[in-house]
Amino acid sequence: MNFDISERARRLTSSAIREILKVTEDPSVISFAGGIPAPQTFPVALMQQASARILADAPHAALQYAPTEGYRPLREWIAERHGVHQDRILITTGSQQALDLLAKVLIDPGKRVLVENPTYLGALQAFSLFEPTLTPIECDALGIVTGSLTRDIVAGARFLYTMPNFQNPTGRRMSEARRRELMKVMTEENVLVVEDDPYGELSYDGKVLPSLLSIAPDHVVHLGSFSKIISPGLRVGYAIAPQSLIKKLVQAKQASDLHTSSFTQRIIHEVLQTGFLAAHVERIRALYLAQRNVILESLERHCTSSLSWNVPDGGMFFWARTQSEVDTAALLKATLAPATGARVAFVPGAPFFAGQPDASALRLSFVTVPPPRIEEGVAQLARALHNFDNFDSFA
Amino acid sequence: MNFDISERARRLTSSAIREILKVTEDPSVISFAGGIPAPQTFPVALMQQASARILADAPHAALQYAPTEGYRPLREWIAERHGVHQDRILITTGSQQALDLLAKVLIDPGKRVLVENPTYLGALQAFSLFEPTLTPIECDALGIVTGSLTRDIVAGARFLYTMPNFQNPTGRRMSEARRRELMKVMTEENVLVVEDDPYGELSYDGKVLPSLLSIAPDHVVHLGSFSKIISPGLRVGYAIAPQSLIKKLVQAKQASDLHTSSFTQRIIHEVLQTGFLAAHVERIRALYLAQRNVILESLERHCTSSLSWNVPDGGMFFWARTQSEVDTAALLKATLAPATGARVAFVPGAPFFAGQPDASALRLSFVTVPPPRIEEGVAQLARALHNFDNFDSFA
Repeated sequence: MNFDISERARRLTSSAIREILKVTEDPSVISFAGGIPAPQTFPVALMQQASARILADAPHAALQYAPTEGYRPLREWIAERHGVHQDRILITTGSQQALDLLAKVLIDPGKRVLVENPTYLGALQAFSLFEPTLTPIECDALGIVTGSLTRDIVAGARFLYTMPNFQNPTGRRMSEARRRELMKVMTEENVLVVEDDPYGELSYDGKVLPSLLSIAPDHVVHLGSFSKIISPGLRVGYAIAPQSLIKKLVQAKQASDLHTSSFTQRIIHEVLQTGFLAAHVERIRALYLAQRNVILESLERHCTSSLSWNVPDGGMFFWARTQSEVDTAALLKATLAPATGARVAFVPGAPFFAGQPDASALRLSFVTVPPPRIEEGVAQLARALHNFDNFDSFA
Repeated sequence: MNFDISERARRLTSSAIREILKVTEDPSVISFAGGIPAPQTFPVALMQQASARILADAPHAALQYAPTEGYRPLREWIAERHGVHQDRILITTGSQQALDLLAKVLIDPGKRVLVENPTYLGALQAFSLFEPTLTPIECDALGIVTGSLTRDIVAGARFLYTMPNFQNPTGRRMSEARRRELMKVMTEENVLVVEDDPYGELSYDGKVLPSLLSIAPDHVVHLGSFSKIISPGLRVGYAIAPQSLIKKLVQAKQASDLHTSSFTQRIIHEVLQTGFLAAHVERIRALYLAQRNVILESLERHCTSSLSWNVPDGGMFFWARTQSEVDTAALLKATLAPATGARVAFVPGAPFFAGQPDASALRLSFVTVPPPRIEEGVAQLARALHNFDNFDSFA
């Protein structure tokens, strides 16, 4: 049959990342494309113990319907960690769901939403369904250029969305001065800030900058996740928001999926109770720093004449630009079908831009590739860039 | 701070059911209000084995990010059970999420959506966020009065939403003749039908009527759930839809929560592989039939002069009307604060209506109350009704 779909659904397109991930299921591809954590960091033994204990001690509660707000002891743990009241916390089905709920509750068609440029693709997808006017904000190596936030741009926006720590895709961390300047402007203009913080724990040197939430607790929705420090497959994240907004988010969540799995929420809480997290996060940081150093050395060995890049101090991503301004979507076709050598995948940069895209950018995720393969993949990427520069695009 | 919320969020209100469920957390209340399955039906031992086996055999896959469409072996199991291709199946975070995704993909503001009258409250909540014009359809004891589906009402609607088996709230099952008539009209008018079927397995006599999906496979989105036959706390449901629509639903789901928990999907699949389901569903049916018979006898003993009701042939709900047309929202206040006797909860009928509400209706869920408490609760409800009729409302 034919059926009419909504205006918003017409705008939905399958993401570039999504299509690429399908290719990278082939294990012969060296993939820097994924945005996924290293699976050897999942605390499997603790999960086994937690699952068994929960199903032995409280099976009926863990398998039954549960309150929309989330499992109270888990909310209390989060509240204590962030120094806020637990009534400000909503457990979400991954922090992606928080983006959907915020869009539902805050965006009317045509209203302005401010985003970093570039920004997290999944946020652009979640927001776009609700038809805002997305306004890209100028950014540099220190994060949002707060001097560019004039009243014309800021006033009347529904919110500003930012990932201050080791941003996806740039790997960049916003400086403390910029954080304070940002919250000063946003507080003066009375515009809400959504602080998305999935990578905050993954600072290689353990140094933590003040969260936007801590700077201006009443003007920030802080999104957290257990995906990068425990496991993404359990789909447990959270939002911390002013209480009047939490009420609306809870109502929107009730209509969206009733509640997040009571079983997976309890597993997260149970493993947190063991007190393993601090040491566990240290191990993840050490692993990711070692991986970063391998890709950095490989890039320095093979790509200094063809790429420029940021060196991240945490998280999972390198963000690079081709010096000859090659279109990286075309480059990807070449690296996935090379004349010789291994196939290599990365994510082209253009989809991360709400404004004019920088088509010469690319994102390299380095935490899941074994070090010898990192070296091989970067060398192959350099060969493809060299051929591209000499023969132009053969797309 | 003050912030602007969306027009759709302004319409969100906390549901009556939700507020009532808070009261019923007090174990001294005899609650017929819940819409939850009996927890003694959860296959705990199988879950324990499944969880342990998954975390031993495939921990990294079960705890990692996973495809939006869902876990392939689970999709294959569902495809085989329904006789459709697996590409038509999307796993959702409970079937509530399917309602949200359908609304996102199919509803534009002001466009018509046809709903049974009364209908599932969670569907009204999910749809309303996307601002359709909800058109209530005439129903009787056999389901939708298909003769009322004139071209004026049907043509141009985005979809018709129905729960043909043991509907929430009425407990009613649509007759086979009505099903065929309904699909004839809807096919002729080229309007999609959303068949929500959480209770289809819970037919007390095991008799199964043809699904709307089987009658007109290309015109139906069929929603299924493991919540009532395995466990709601795992939050695993599914949608079967025409392939062009599945693509849009997958894109919308990606923006909503990336994917449903890979761990809980695998648990469902693992317990299904044991082949326990047929015998398990038989035990649930026998339990729920016994519970239904207890409440039916209690109603016949205490309430024949004050209530009329449907006798359900499956599922979890009695739907009743007060013969003196008492407002059941006011009645609830009386049953929750009785002068003597136990406190009793039920769900007032009005919120289930998209059109003119029948405020004298109420929903009684009987599957989680122990039989002696059912008798006590119904007797108390009868006393409250008697007092109400004699003294009018004291609200």
